[in-house]
Amino acid sequence: MALNASRKPVLDGKECDMSGWDMDNCPVRDVLDRIAGKWSTLLLEALSRQPYRFGELRRLVPDISQRMLTQTLRDLQRDGYIEREVFPTKPPSVEYRMTELGRSLFEPLSKVLRWAEANHPSVKAARVKYDESELA
Amino acid sequence: MALNASRKPVLDGKECDMSGWDMDNCPVRDVLDRIAGKWSTLLLEALSRQPYRFGELRRLVPDISQRMLTQTLRDLQRDGYIEREVFPTKPPSVEYRMTELGRSLFEPLSKVLRWAEANHPSVKAARVKYDESELA
Repeated sequence: MALNASRKPVLDGKECDMSGWDMDNCPVRDVLDRIAGKWSTLLLEALSRQPYRFGELRRLVPDISQRMLTQTLRDLQRDGYIEREVFPTKPPSVEYRMTELGRSLFEPLSKVLRWAEANHPSVKAARVKYDESELA
Repeated sequence: MALNASRKPVLDGKECDMSGWDMDNCPVRDVLDRIAGKWSTLLLEALSRQPYRFGELRRLVPDISQRMLTQTLRDLQRDGYIEREVFPTKPPSVEYRMTELGRSLFEPLSKVLRWAEANHPSVKAARVKYDESELA
């Protein structure tokens, strides 16, 4: 699968037949689906700066439920982007930090975040223009 | 909002208060949510190569419903990433092509796609390791 070598979409190919769109066998889709979640990007961004304890992340994102935070951290850990260390304090404290794989992902991902930040006005302007043309 | 200037997450700040997570006022989230969809990335990838007519896109992604294809193209057009041209053939044919804004987005986005493709084996290996440690 070469991104610019063929006219076929990147997700097409032997491993990733669009006609079946087999998630398990589509590498790009399989990776993207995990990092595209509402909380995943935010947590990756936070952990790209410094390690955080569970309670700190909870306070950082007050509107995430404890269950959703636990699940999102577990998914990110399972995919290898973050690691979890338990410290034998009383009560035990748990710290999350980004792995090398996570840093390697976050490098291109952060550029998309920057693009979004910089170009949000253009996107908003496009929406206004589109909505006006729909009304016309 | 500077990605590396503070210890606060990128989505925090005046315009994007995590405690409320106001989608309308969070530029990064507002842009990301649209491009993270299952079909959006695929269609952007296809249209980054060449313009396509509606029917061609339909055949390119046989498992997308006509309604979902129409909706996804409309969303991408509304956000300014693609444009739509109607040709006065009989019956009229409609062509979609990527805009400059779309190309500008696709540049960093394609790097995330390439990362996903290149690092899928590492992600899969991390999952196996994680699942084994859960069983232990």
